[in-house]
Amino acid sequence: MFMPVGTQGTVKGLSPEELMGIGSQIVLANTYHLMLRPGEALVAAHGGLPGFTAYPGPFLTDSGGFQVMSLGHMRKISEEGVIFKSHIDGSRVELTPERSIQVQEALGADVIMAFDECPPYPAEPQYIRASLERTVRWLERCLSVKTRPDQALFAIVQGGVHEDLRRQSLQATLPFATPGFALGGLAVGESKDEMFPAVGFTAQHLPEDKPRYLMGVGHPEDLVAGIALGIDMFDCVYPTRTGRFGYALTDDGRLNMNSSAPRQQLLPIDPDCDCYACRHYTRAYLAHLLRAEEMLAPRMLSLHNLRYLHRLVERARTAIAEGHFFPWAREWGGRYFKGQRPTWFEQALTQGEG
Amino acid sequence: MFMPVGTQGTVKGLSPEELMGIGSQIVLANTYHLMLRPGEALVAAHGGLPGFTAYPGPFLTDSGGFQVMSLGHMRKISEEGVIFKSHIDGSRVELTPERSIQVQEALGADVIMAFDECPPYPAEPQYIRASLERTVRWLERCLSVKTRPDQALFAIVQGGVHEDLRRQSLQATLPFATPGFALGGLAVGESKDEMFPAVGFTAQHLPEDKPRYLMGVGHPEDLVAGIALGIDMFDCVYPTRTGRFGYALTDDGRLNMNSSAPRQQLLPIDPDCDCYACRHYTRAYLAHLLRAEEMLAPRMLSLHNLRYLHRLVERARTAIAEGHFFPWAREWGGRYFKGQRPTWFEQALTQGEG
Repeated sequence: MFMPVGTQGTVKGLSPEELMGIGSQIVLANTYHLMLRPGEALVAAHGGLPGFTAYPGPFLTDSGGFQVMSLGHMRKISEEGVIFKSHIDGSRVELTPERSIQVQEALGADVIMAFDECPPYPAEPQYIRASLERTVRWLERCLSVKTRPDQALFAIVQGGVHEDLRRQSLQATLPFATPGFALGGLAVGESKDEMFPAVGFTAQHLPEDKPRYLMGVGHPEDLVAGIALGIDMFDCVYPTRTGRFGYALTDDGRLNMNSSAPRQQLLPIDPDCDCYACRHYTRAYLAHLLRAEEMLAPRMLSLHNLRYLHRLVERARTAIAEGHFFPWAREWGGRYFKGQRPTWFEQALTQGEG
Repeated sequence: MFMPVGTQGTVKGLSPEELMGIGSQIVLANTYHLMLRPGEALVAAHGGLPGFTAYPGPFLTDSGGFQVMSLGHMRKISEEGVIFKSHIDGSRVELTPERSIQVQEALGADVIMAFDECPPYPAEPQYIRASLERTVRWLERCLSVKTRPDQALFAIVQGGVHEDLRRQSLQATLPFATPGFALGGLAVGESKDEMFPAVGFTAQHLPEDKPRYLMGVGHPEDLVAGIALGIDMFDCVYPTRTGRFGYALTDDGRLNMNSSAPRQQLLPIDPDCDCYACRHYTRAYLAHLLRAEEMLAPRMLSLHNLRYLHRLVERARTAIAEGHFFPWAREWGGRYFKGQRPTWFEQALTQGEG
């Protein structure tokens, strides 16, 4: 499954009704953002995220760790946790494993994530090793303070792109036998030639009967390669963000709706797509909205792009069930990459098939 | 009826499905904007506005005259028409009665407007007189080049806030017996104490069996006062614009969702409202979206505000049908103005009732 990202308690521009309509299964919300604004107490007063956001389906919250690293200022990491300055008002905030779980319990998602450190890329192997060892100790602390039996806590495997460090993290993390496992520390700047071997190595050591979640990924081609390697769950701001910038995802690659050609095209973004935008609008109309800086343009392109990724994983799921995933993935890649499937994509398919 | 404004072929932020859902009856589109971008030929290639915008209901287009006055640069008005520079690319554009009708026929709205001049406020009576006389000659030219029998052309009565000039315009315009008449040149900066007597004087001389359309109005209180004076149709960007700025329309007046109180209120904007925002969201959530600058906030507040005005005219219609419009209007005004109905409002009701 692909999970739309609702950073601040809203998938940008879209209503819960629209998300249900395009087949979203879980919405991701960010602990870091919501604890800073409006604060988890207000969300809890609404009965948690479904009451606050009116999205009636399941939620997943991240732990806040990743955002602290990418958005917090003056952050200081210690064994205890992380101290940082809020990007909103500069106030000093402390986030620890205990506090992360407390906030996530107040937000009330169905799946919550262990508080981890996601080292930057590149980082020294010694740093990554010390960090992943601390992340395991933080996992233990998360589990020991967790009180809600109705929330599933997923552990996160770290280790950068290094096979030995991934192995070490796996060996230390698997014994906790959490109901799902995430692959963290990837898609943070490394090349796809580096990322996908790490995905493949990690995924093959994770239990097949539990969800394997590749955090912060991704692009359509990443989903197909990830699925080949055993990944079950993805999330990324990409489809909504690129939609806001005027790009539409299709089987033929990314369509730039800001360019001149679509302005005269009286056909939908994708005639095979069943989203509201494709059923109602021509490319010419959507391109007009973009040029006129009309709000309906980012809204409709976000809707289409999310529906595209949901349809993509639906097609992959059907192909798996019918036993022809790898031929389907190669055919999809041939069209998407216009006949030139990159090496990392081919290797992910070969490894997954083998 | 209140008509939502879709300046550039979209009611800002809302889908056609939403507009149908909240009871919109006609959408207004702007000739000036659409002729400049994307050009009327592209709209015509879609079969007109319903095909272009996917809104399946009726449309009304203005003539372009008002926007030329308010947005065009270096405009030059002559007997022939208006020459101006486009606000988009500075190119020189000529708009005449003939060209306005040609564009409006290509856009394909159900109701089209005569090309008129809307003098600024204040203006010298001599200028207003010369202008309204030219507007009558332009009306004649519009009617003589009109070819589509499926489009209803409404004439526009001018004359500023001067009773004698309104009378002159009425006497010259009524003989054309167009299927509807509009009141132009109002809500352009004059006070409500000046505007409503002019509305009342003009409306009472227009045929009762044809729609009377007060252009560019307005606020909730203007609709109630206008209906009292016999007005049947209104349009204004106000509900969507004020929504984008974070204000919500209610029977208790305009609610500032940017202020601190709503941030903690776990109740809808208006418990009596049946719009999506009021059925799903608390004020606290919507206030959070506003602070976080999330696109869903302007979208939902625009939806609510339009629904509020549609409900307001629905309630007025019911009250008229049941024979108790004036008591209803006074009760509504008492609550809306918190017990202090302004003089112009009282006088409009008294005049309408008398």
